[in-house]
Amino acid sequence: MNHQEALTEYLAAFVSGLVQAGVKDVVISPGSRSTPLALLIAENRDLNVYMNIDERSAGFFALGMAKASQRPVALLCTSGTAAANYFPAVVEANLSRVPLIILTADRPHELRDVGAPQAIDQIHLYGNHVRWFTDLALPEFGQEQYAFNTAVRAIKEATGHLQGPVHLNFPLREPLLPILEPYPFTEKIKELKISQGNLTISNETAREIAEQIQQIENGLIIVGDIDKPELAEAIHQFAQLTGYPIVADPLSQLRGSTTADSQVIDSYDAILKNEQAVNLLRPDLIIRFGSMPVSKPLTLFLKKWRQSPHIIVDGGSGWRDPQNLGTMMVQCDEAIFCHTIKAFFTEARQTQYFSIWKDLNHIAKETIASYLKSMNDLDEGKVIYELAKVIPENSTIFAGNSMPIRDVDTFFHQTRKNIHLMANRGANGIDGVVSTAIGAAVYRNPLYLVIGDLSFFHDLNGLLAAKLNDISINIILINNDGGGIFSFLPQSKLDRHYELLFGTPIGIDFSYAMKMYGGEYCKITNWGEFDQAIEATAEKSGIHVIEVQTNRQANLESHRNMWRLIGEEIDRYFEAMKNGH
Amino acid sequence: MNHQEALTEYLAAFVSGLVQAGVKDVVISPGSRSTPLALLIAENRDLNVYMNIDERSAGFFALGMAKASQRPVALLCTSGTAAANYFPAVVEANLSRVPLIILTADRPHELRDVGAPQAIDQIHLYGNHVRWFTDLALPEFGQEQYAFNTAVRAIKEATGHLQGPVHLNFPLREPLLPILEPYPFTEKIKELKISQGNLTISNETAREIAEQIQQIENGLIIVGDIDKPELAEAIHQFAQLTGYPIVADPLSQLRGSTTADSQVIDSYDAILKNEQAVNLLRPDLIIRFGSMPVSKPLTLFLKKWRQSPHIIVDGGSGWRDPQNLGTMMVQCDEAIFCHTIKAFFTEARQTQYFSIWKDLNHIAKETIASYLKSMNDLDEGKVIYELAKVIPENSTIFAGNSMPIRDVDTFFHQTRKNIHLMANRGANGIDGVVSTAIGAAVYRNPLYLVIGDLSFFHDLNGLLAAKLNDISINIILINNDGGGIFSFLPQSKLDRHYELLFGTPIGIDFSYAMKMYGGEYCKITNWGEFDQAIEATAEKSGIHVIEVQTNRQANLESHRNMWRLIGEEIDRYFEAMKNGH
Repeated sequence: MNHQEALTEYLAAFVSGLVQAGVKDVVISPGSRSTPLALLIAENRDLNVYMNIDERSAGFFALGMAKASQRPVALLCTSGTAAANYFPAVVEANLSRVPLIILTADRPHELRDVGAPQAIDQIHLYGNHVRWFTDLALPEFGQEQYAFNTAVRAIKEATGHLQGPVHLNFPLREPLLPILEPYPFTEKIKELKISQGNLTISNETAREIAEQIQQIENGLIIVGDIDKPELAEAIHQFAQLTGYPIVADPLSQLRGSTTADSQVIDSYDAILKNEQAVNLLRPDLIIRFGSMPVSKPLTLFLKKWRQSPHIIVDGGSGWRDPQNLGTMMVQCDEAIFCHTIKAFFTEARQTQYFSIWKDLNHIAKETIASYLKSMNDLDEGKVIYELAKVIPENSTIFAGNSMPIRDVDTFFHQTRKNIHLMANRGANGIDGVVSTAIGAAVYRNPLYLVIGDLSFFHDLNGLLAAKLNDISINIILINNDGGGIFSFLPQSKLDRHYELLFGTPIGIDFSYAMKMYGGEYCKITNWGEFDQAIEATAEKSGIHVIEVQTNRQANLESHRNMWRLIGEEIDRYFEAMKNGH
Repeated sequence: MNHQEALTEYLAAFVSGLVQAGVKDVVISPGSRSTPLALLIAENRDLNVYMNIDERSAGFFALGMAKASQRPVALLCTSGTAAANYFPAVVEANLSRVPLIILTADRPHELRDVGAPQAIDQIHLYGNHVRWFTDLALPEFGQEQYAFNTAVRAIKEATGHLQGPVHLNFPLREPLLPILEPYPFTEKIKELKISQGNLTISNETAREIAEQIQQIENGLIIVGDIDKPELAEAIHQFAQLTGYPIVADPLSQLRGSTTADSQVIDSYDAILKNEQAVNLLRPDLIIRFGSMPVSKPLTLFLKKWRQSPHIIVDGGSGWRDPQNLGTMMVQCDEAIFCHTIKAFFTEARQTQYFSIWKDLNHIAKETIASYLKSMNDLDEGKVIYELAKVIPENSTIFAGNSMPIRDVDTFFHQTRKNIHLMANRGANGIDGVVSTAIGAAVYRNPLYLVIGDLSFFHDLNGLLAAKLNDISINIILINNDGGGIFSFLPQSKLDRHYELLFGTPIGIDFSYAMKMYGGEYCKITNWGEFDQAIEATAEKSGIHVIEVQTNRQANLESHRNMWRLIGEEIDRYFEAMKNGH
């Protein structure tokens, strides 16, 4: 059997393994060493190919697709720095637990570490940032089952309890052309099924937790970033039976869920800026799901009441406790946890603790609403509030990091519109956000990305994928010409170096980027135009950028004013309570 | 002593160490965790700060500066994926042996691997791709000398025999503001000098090599990518005494050197496509400096004559021999090698072997010149030829990877204009080329970047650094709407998947990019316009893009026609030689 036949059969078996294990989408960047894999993947009838020139964008684009489709997505690039460009997306996928299957072509062994062109050390290239790494053998006749099984195993490693990226490195020797006729994917390979169950909780532990809940009225359920469709209903029932409020992070998917109910508290960030509230809302038990919420006041609140028992439920058996608050780690599938504990309860519990939370939540939301109503200037918070009002049913909002996700936390309130909320909160990078959102838009449409100017600039290249693959996306660009978040940090008071190191205005007119990538661009000047622009997106496909120009200093003051007003209203509420009203 | 004082003294000592060890330039990307280092670096009077928003571009920008200034350049970013974005530039710096000092801010130990925001595993983040890694201690009073010495040691590791990147990771605890008054850089620290000599060759080995050279007339000197200013003169003298031709890669700096002489052969790529030439020019001894040359015909020629003794001289004590051709590895500074061997010779040697090389070189160059003269279409090879003609004295050409560097090899002939030639040939990536060239332009001006459209797109973000830091650069954009190099590979004959996977046309009008970054753009339509556009750059600063639109298929045919003509002329020469003319 000659080289070309061995190459074809071996790699075709690998590609068949990907298909059998459930991969549907492959994002490819052009290159020479990866030629045989690229051609076989393109030839396979069960795989969709997305071309993405820039590997950094490609990595995040695949991440977005995997998050939105809830399936592993494969990536393929050539040898050399191409593979190094995947690194930021690999890091994010690791921490946000998203299954990416990284396939890198490599030079054969005799060309490693001897100054050959485009040959870099790709062994364990991503270090501990992947769940699994393997350097495959050179293609060889008789090793088809090995190649097939390696693909299946890779998907299993990426989609286990602690989901994440895996890296497969393929040394390939020239010539690199596979044989495409006849159709190279045969049925000769023995299939391999892998079945992995969910993590459960023991009866004793469940009983212990249930009894604890029954004894404690002032309990709090906290739900951070977690995207498991079956969870909303389970947590909803769990909260009703326990009588505990659900403090729901924007990425909990509980704010924009049709099964969301009155148990959800969404304005805790504003409430917990008030000192009286922090003191009077002391929780005697905390049950936490998903990753740590975005809100800093919530974190400070939890740190203040760190003596309270604190149960962390994690179906991925990770260790999400940066403040060392946990008193019990329950490594159990979150929905199974809720259903198991639920069985110990018979009817819904009403608690005063929840009533107070509910009142304060109402006060905060009313104050925000009336504050924003009187606000005529273009304000970053109001962007989210207005968007929530006019956004079509069944839309997805993708929030950029730094300021947008925080503004979504404060200004995106519970709705029955069924809105899905997404962000990259594994490593919280401002990089790759455009590409991730475009990847998500392949599966979630319409999608609205809310992003700041620095983050938009960082991944401007990501727009090419939308252009070349005809993916529709709406981008709300909040342009305050620089890094707005630093205005909230102590260095903003420095008399020198501030604009150079932190403000970093870039002074770019992004309308030209839209001309380059064939998108539509508008810059709105008032809220009427904003609402119209959002409404107009419902009927159009393609890339749409709606730019909102804001001012960093005004934005800082506006946020502070609003928080002050909410604080005053809360004080008034407690005053009235003390006076017996 | 409080936290802020300890933070300031410790990090100020570190920054003082950088300065003492010779760092002048620091490229900073904005971030929060890196605040104290950023502020202290900005405050230091001996350091220049360059802000670069996108860390991927920042990494390559620093690489370009380090290459052009021949000094270590430091980079600073915040924690998280920011650091992962440096990876492609770190990989290139490793293989091209460029000293980059990577400083990454990190969360303190208690926030690692517990789900804290923007906390990723930064320990050994770049694996074996750096010369040295250290995770510094948290800032502490009394550890200033340790911080200072770590900086000095880092520079030493980066600038030793095998130069390259180093990575220093800084865990930092909040609050992050240092004290800037009074001027925090004191003289209290004990200075630390490190002196490292050059690698030399023993007398016995030198004598042995000299005697071998004296016995062999048909010897060949090959100089690949190497940028040591003192080398041109040393190799020139060495070649005259030995009578050996110098096969000079474009990155040898011997083609555009005022000390270059008639010993240099620059058209070997065209010559060695001819079978008779390959056979009749058999070398009996090869002495090679620098990395492997770009030319594929040269590599095939060396592989064919692999039985000949082959000496590899490497002052960085690396192992640059992808074809296993070497019979002797001489780990010695290249100039010292030439001077040491030279001492065994008294007068210049004339050889027939060199005469033939010289004749063939003349034939190839004449044929190329007359072929291009008759060429009216916009042709990729002619771009280099015309550029060489009209480029101002003391300019630098930065060649993009993939096609431009190969065209420079073929079409940039020896000149006395003193032209410096640069490229990223460590890992040969098409990524980061724009940023590297802009970084180089800080020290080398005027600079002309020749780049293809895919590579230009890949690092479009790099242009922001030129805009924000007022760096002038001239970019000759060869736009064949896709990946031209694949036309030369076997897959170009495929009837399907070719344009999707390899041609990858992106259809972008780059004039909008120039509007965005405040540069000037022109698209030339004939050679007169091209010459005028290049000449016009001499008087203007800023970013200039001169776009040359070419056709992938026509370009392939044009290259092939020219090589055929050269082959015919060479055959005629050998025919005449056989007939005694």
